[in-house]
Amino acid sequence: MAYFTKRYHPPGTPAGTLIETPASGRLPLQIRLIDYDEGRIMIRDDVKVAECAPFLEKASTTWIHVQGHPTEALLREIGTTFRLHYLALEDVLNSGQRPKVEPFDDQLFVVMSMPEMRSGRVEVHQVSLFFGNNFLVSFCENSSASFQQIVKRLGEQGSRLRSRGADYLLYSLLDMVIDQGFPVLENFGLELEEVEEQILGTSYQATLGRIHSVKRELILLRRLLWPQRDVINQLMRGDDALVREDTLIYLRDCYDHTVQVMELLETYRDMTASMLDIYLSSVNNEMNQVMRLLTVIATIFIPLSFITGVYGMNFDRTVSLWNMPELGLPYGYLLIWLVMAAIGLSMLVYFRRRKWI
Amino acid sequence: MAYFTKRYHPPGTPAGTLIETPASGRLPLQIRLIDYDEGRIMIRDDVKVAECAPFLEKASTTWIHVQGHPTEALLREIGTTFRLHYLALEDVLNSGQRPKVEPFDDQLFVVMSMPEMRSGRVEVHQVSLFFGNNFLVSFCENSSASFQQIVKRLGEQGSRLRSRGADYLLYSLLDMVIDQGFPVLENFGLELEEVEEQILGTSYQATLGRIHSVKRELILLRRLLWPQRDVINQLMRGDDALVREDTLIYLRDCYDHTVQVMELLETYRDMTASMLDIYLSSVNNEMNQVMRLLTVIATIFIPLSFITGVYGMNFDRTVSLWNMPELGLPYGYLLIWLVMAAIGLSMLVYFRRRKWI
Amino acid sequence: MAYFTKRYHPPGTPAGTLIETPASGRLPLQIRLIDYDEGRIMIRDDVKVAECAPFLEKASTTWIHVQGHPTEALLREIGTTFRLHYLALEDVLNSGQRPKVEPFDDQLFVVMSMPEMRSGRVEVHQVSLFFGNNFLVSFCENSSASFQQIVKRLGEQGSRLRSRGADYLLYSLLDMVIDQGFPVLENFGLELEEVEEQILGTSYQATLGRIHSVKRELILLRRLLWPQRDVINQLMRGDDALVREDTLIYLRDCYDHTVQVMELLETYRDMTASMLDIYLSSVNNEMNQVMRLLTVIATIFIPLSFITGVYGMNFDRTVSLWNMPELGLPYGYLLIWLVMAAIGLSMLVYFRRRKWI
Amino acid sequence: MAYFTKRYHPPGTPAGTLIETPASGRLPLQIRLIDYDEGRIMIRDDVKVAECAPFLEKASTTWIHVQGHPTEALLREIGTTFRLHYLALEDVLNSGQRPKVEPFDDQLFVVMSMPEMRSGRVEVHQVSLFFGNNFLVSFCENSSASFQQIVKRLGEQGSRLRSRGADYLLYSLLDMVIDQGFPVLENFGLELEEVEEQILGTSYQATLGRIHSVKRELILLRRLLWPQRDVINQLMRGDDALVREDTLIYLRDCYDHTVQVMELLETYRDMTASMLDIYLSSVNNEMNQVMRLLTVIATIFIPLSFITGVYGMNFDRTVSLWNMPELGLPYGYLLIWLVMAAIGLSMLVYFRRRKWI
Amino acid sequence: MAYFTKRYHPPGTPAGTLIETPASGRLPLQIRLIDYDEGRIMIRDDVKVAECAPFLEKASTTWIHVQGHPTEALLREIGTTFRLHYLALEDVLNSGQRPKVEPFDDQLFVVMSMPEMRSGRVEVHQVSLFFGNNFLVSFCENSSASFQQIVKRLGEQGSRLRSRGADYLLYSLLDMVIDQGFPVLENFGLELEEVEEQILGTSYQATLGRIHSVKRELILLRRLLWPQRDVINQLMRGDDALVREDTLIYLRDCYDHTVQVMELLETYRDMTASMLDIYLSSVNNEMNQVMRLLTVIATIFIPLSFITGVYGMNFDRTVSLWNMPELGLPYGYLLIWLVMAAIGLSMLVYFRRRKWI
Repeated sequence: MAYFTKRYHPPGTPAGTLIETPASGRLPLQIRLIDYDEGRIMIRDDVKVAECAPFLEKASTTWIHVQGHPTEALLREIGTTFRLHYLALEDVLNSGQRPKVEPFDDQLFVVMSMPEMRSGRVEVHQVSLFFGNNFLVSFCENSSASFQQIVKRLGEQGSRLRSRGADYLLYSLLDMVIDQGFPVLENFGLELEEVEEQILGTSYQATLGRIHSVKRELILLRRLLWPQRDVINQLMRGDDALVREDTLIYLRDCYDHTVQVMELLETYRDMTASMLDIYLSSVNNEMNQVMRLLTVIATIFIPLSFITGVYGMNFDRTVSLWNMPELGLPYGYLLIWLVMAAIGLSMLVYFRRRKWI
Repeated sequence: MAYFTKRYHPPGTPAGTLIETPASGRLPLQIRLIDYDEGRIMIRDDVKVAECAPFLEKASTTWIHVQGHPTEALLREIGTTFRLHYLALEDVLNSGQRPKVEPFDDQLFVVMSMPEMRSGRVEVHQVSLFFGNNFLVSFCENSSASFQQIVKRLGEQGSRLRSRGADYLLYSLLDMVIDQGFPVLENFGLELEEVEEQILGTSYQATLGRIHSVKRELILLRRLLWPQRDVINQLMRGDDALVREDTLIYLRDCYDHTVQVMELLETYRDMTASMLDIYLSSVNNEMNQVMRLLTVIATIFIPLSFITGVYGMNFDRTVSLWNMPELGLPYGYLLIWLVMAAIGLSMLVYFRRRKWI
Repeated sequence: MAYFTKRYHPPGTPAGTLIETPASGRLPLQIRLIDYDEGRIMIRDDVKVAECAPFLEKASTTWIHVQGHPTEALLREIGTTFRLHYLALEDVLNSGQRPKVEPFDDQLFVVMSMPEMRSGRVEVHQVSLFFGNNFLVSFCENSSASFQQIVKRLGEQGSRLRSRGADYLLYSLLDMVIDQGFPVLENFGLELEEVEEQILGTSYQATLGRIHSVKRELILLRRLLWPQRDVINQLMRGDDALVREDTLIYLRDCYDHTVQVMELLETYRDMTASMLDIYLSSVNNEMNQVMRLLTVIATIFIPLSFITGVYGMNFDRTVSLWNMPELGLPYGYLLIWLVMAAIGLSMLVYFRRRKWI
Repeated sequence: MAYFTKRYHPPGTPAGTLIETPASGRLPLQIRLIDYDEGRIMIRDDVKVAECAPFLEKASTTWIHVQGHPTEALLREIGTTFRLHYLALEDVLNSGQRPKVEPFDDQLFVVMSMPEMRSGRVEVHQVSLFFGNNFLVSFCENSSASFQQIVKRLGEQGSRLRSRGADYLLYSLLDMVIDQGFPVLENFGLELEEVEEQILGTSYQATLGRIHSVKRELILLRRLLWPQRDVINQLMRGDDALVREDTLIYLRDCYDHTVQVMELLETYRDMTASMLDIYLSSVNNEMNQVMRLLTVIATIFIPLSFITGVYGMNFDRTVSLWNMPELGLPYGYLLIWLVMAAIGLSMLVYFRRRKWI
Repeated sequence: MAYFTKRYHPPGTPAGTLIETPASGRLPLQIRLIDYDEGRIMIRDDVKVAECAPFLEKASTTWIHVQGHPTEALLREIGTTFRLHYLALEDVLNSGQRPKVEPFDDQLFVVMSMPEMRSGRVEVHQVSLFFGNNFLVSFCENSSASFQQIVKRLGEQGSRLRSRGADYLLYSLLDMVIDQGFPVLENFGLELEEVEEQILGTSYQATLGRIHSVKRELILLRRLLWPQRDVINQLMRGDDALVREDTLIYLRDCYDHTVQVMELLETYRDMTASMLDIYLSSVNNEMNQVMRLLTVIATIFIPLSFITGVYGMNFDRTVSLWNMPELGLPYGYLLIWLVMAAIGLSMLVYFRRRKWI
């Protein structure tokens, strides 16, 4: 996850300008048209936008799903067909928007952030939804297996999704996007549990890097997911006639999930902060232990080495009796060993008593 | 307590799906039916759900308590009998939900988190309550002695619990669940007092681990208990005709308890943060003391050892008078001892004066 | 101040249960009856509860002050006489409640926390007040000189306290309890000023303990005093007909005091946090200074000792001219002294220039 | 600035008690009477309170400014003349109140905190204002040049201050008091910029003390100035008929200033926190650098000294050929120098490569 | 960016005083007059203020853009022509105001802060806008290319900017100012990514300075940009008839941008805090590693050096057999080497096993 993810126009550009950004290894563009009512369903892939127009007239629910990054021309075409506002289309093109819901006349424009684990790293993709009375246009830059899941449920005769209108489809998509947070957070939870085991055991530089990367991703994820709560909340208030009364109960369930996701995120943030503290003091503790033992050893031998130094001096014993008479004592060597042992032991005892070793 | 406790479906699953998770060493499932009014009480264990249905017709209060993890089939059966919403039933099965209250038509669905001390560790279990006009269905994965307490009180002729309806039973259960927080917090309080004694005394690595584990459990507990306040608050607002006017005064008492629990939690969190600071500076202080004394000793002996090194050199005194004439002085050895004593003492005095030892 | 101060019943106990906790060295129970109106005052000590009943009928204001921990029997008796709610009585018995105000029919139940300095330590006692139209029942576990102060003012003919009703008495008691905060905080202020002088001077372990104990007491005090603001605020809103219009102006004054107390508490908390930071860096600074000087000394002597070591080696000069020829130089010894002095001085100069000593 | 600045009565004292605190080197008391309308102005110094009374009857605006600490008698006299509430008078006498505005019948009582730089230190003085329909009574313990500024503007014929009533005078005084914050904050800004230059350069203990003192004063200043915002806000709401519609626009300007002052304070607080962090890590960095170089030197010489120690041993070469044969080699001394040089250099290279020196 | 950026008058100066501050190397003053409606546009540079007056009468939209710091005389002239309030004019002259919107009669006065990257550093300039029914007067001290962008769009026949009135021009300018935040934040994002790479690699003092400077600029930028949200919010509430209904949708887009800017700022602040933590522990870790290895080396050689010291003592072997008999052993030298090797190796093994090296 990069720090700055928003694509933006140079300041001063008129609002609603559609400028295509160079596609960098994106998925090939795919448009899928699904038209269904309780009785029948029709799924057509790689349709032309013009082919969708007639379906809007009918009472059945029409869902256009655009996968991959759309071109400017395509957006314009879709915009004209479904009468979408160009301010909203601009936000589809400049992905990296924060989650929001914006009412336009008889439509709602909803932006969501969908987190996903990809080869051990979190990726966040923008999902844009236009939602009108009997249609829904969805954009997702990334191919998610979960969208396929919804299509599959639509295919099942008698499923709740089939018998209800576009607003229930909207709810199902929102719920799916939000629920993507759980596997991601479960992943973070496992990571934190692993880190926790590490920090009170041995401490490597790697642990530090891991805590940092978790913290960093949580901070960035938080910025992207936090506004989702407001999105669902705004939809739940039901100011728009577009969302029917009996769908509100499902949105409430959805809201509950966003709150759970955010609470987990906050808890994990608290935990990483706490873990960093513990890690640091753990490292410190270990270092202190090393330093302590080693310094104690050094300190015991320093005075002893001094003594051996003294008796290694070459004062001329032949000049006077006062020059190093100890060297001439018959038991001088033994004596000096005893003295050194006494000094060493008493220091050991002292250190032990003060609990330094 | 694990970091990630929620059981969740794969994203894209339709809302209200009941999928049984493999039971891991859970309690055997027990269903108890209690039907009472002011005059009489009937308690029946291990009933079939079908047997409960007739009691719903009567004016008396019916309480079904399900202990252990329910199977999908049982939930469906209960759901049909008591006309419970499948969105709520999903939350019973996927335990680890955050506390909440959700109104469904003529029912309330309440989720609570019940903390308990089990062999020195905190465990949190989900308690789910369905509450209608004259019935209450409660689910608890764990056998708690406190539920038994309520049953006992119900058994007492003339107790307030008997003479009032299902809403007072709801209050009693909520109050019981919330009050479980006090023994848990008392436990934390004692733990913190013990830790406090340790940190200003000697400091072991163990203290650090203990502070961390208290902090960790408080963070997790906070996430689970915090929403309980909102639950009680929502019930107190009395929007639902289900809770009678004269029960509100008891809910207020209950609310007061949740606030107390949360305030204690927050205070303890502040205390652990403070304790970690103190612990760290205490460890630091102690280490500094060790290092200081030991370094002082080393520093005093280093120049002295240098002097003994000088007079241990083998310059040839026979070549010239300038080569180490000190070695030939009659009192050279004594002199050098005096010089070394003077140096050592003056350093000691200097260190003392600067309060380094 | 202990971490966990609330006395609580085992979870599942019915609300309003009065269970006496074993009295541990408490004050002997004292009941004082004061009945007054503008014209006359009557003070009677150690009355029976039954004797108070007739005074309730009269228009004059009746104040019952219970000092010490009441027995269950006494509470029941008072409860019956003054028609007090058993939920409130439970809170009187289980002291350690958070400050709150609870309306019951035609009464108000107010709980306050009264901090006091006792032999240099903060103690907090619960003050419980029942306040009706023409009576006030107060409970305080501790004998406070300040209650006596109010009684004295009541005794003064023509004092404002005498000429106004029970609500002004309530205000006077609340004001007195809140103002107890000022001497306690003044004490903390003085303590902090003393600590501040210490931290930038020499740093002992004792300073750390002192900062910790101030911080700890502020955290605990904050939890107990913070809700007082809400209590006064709730009374000021004047929803209850019990508090007369012209007493509200005094409650506003009282509210102002609670805000001042809380702001001081918060400021002190900020200060202790800041002081801990400064203390730690101060200790660190001092330690660095010690380590630096000592290490410099060691570093200068280590190369010099190496040199003396070299010329203390016993290579056989008789074998070849290449073996330690320096030892045979006429001025070798002087030379080596010059070399060592040069090395030592240049290191000193280098360290000086880099400002390490 | 002291930690505890409020003068308070012993708890239990009746509200509105006026007790004079012993004046400690305060300014001599000065009373100035100014009476003006659009056409004329009259300024009289050292008036008696009784002389002011007649001016109240007139339509012209009357301003009494009391400089220095008033005596109890004077306050009583002013209180009676202008019908001021004794609760407010108590707050004038017990200076150190928090800024607030309190409505009394047909008057407003406003308390403000005026910060000032005095010989490099911040001082905060209480300014108390009583404001009625056509009069304003102001109290300030300190002689501020800025009050003189207002008087001077009043003197100018045709100034806006002259042509408008007492509410514009009130605004002008409030604005003046609030704007005192800017020079004080400018001072802090300069101080912080100086500190910032210091912390990334050399680090002295003095820098630490400076950061601490800035932080301390900001914390204390914040407590005193923060409530000013509420004061202006409350006046702006215009609940009182006293402040005329066309003065509100000026109060809005004034409010803007308080917000600016508070935002600067908060920003500076953030900056000092950040600076302390940087200072600490800067000190740490420098210390690490010292320790590293010095330890490297020690480490290189320790093995070398060991080698010289080995060849300084006195094993008897005459006993066997195995005893220190190296000493008898013709080039032994040269060899040992080569060995030592090799060891020293390879260690240097190793340390260099790991970037330790 | 300096800490204290506001120009202010000495306290006590009357509101609305216009005092010119000495111009320090500012741009030459430029006044540009643009008058347009859907059909035609007229751009005139370096006009006199008097020439603008007639345009106000017409229905077409008149935009006066003043670049550079205006003189007092000019401001007065503009003020009189467009009937601008002197309180607002004061804020134009004393730049460094916080963003705000103030309604005056039939005008709005809007202050914005425009951040810009100039040679790698952030600069913030005040943009002041007066907005009436059919005119807009804008002041900007700095020449921004983005203003030119708006002029260019105005020049395009049929652009939305031309066909709508002054309120859409206001929106376009606000949007442009706010969008200036994105390149600045992108810059910070890149800086943070670079710093992040540094902190987990090698750690130089420079990294610390860089983190500090980013943190500092974010804190200052936050203070300047935060109130922009309120500005747009206030305009969006549409209390003023000046902003037409159909422009509100654009302001909503604008508001969305301010929120994005602020969220990025907050996220970056969190990130720098996190990075400082990581940096510090990274430095600490590296230092620990150095100290550990070096101390281990020292500790191994200290006892060995002691042994060589012992056998360097000169006890007189001729006096007795007890004086250093080891020196006379035929294999004494070999033996002592073995002993030293054994000690050294066992210490190495011990240290290895405890993972200290």
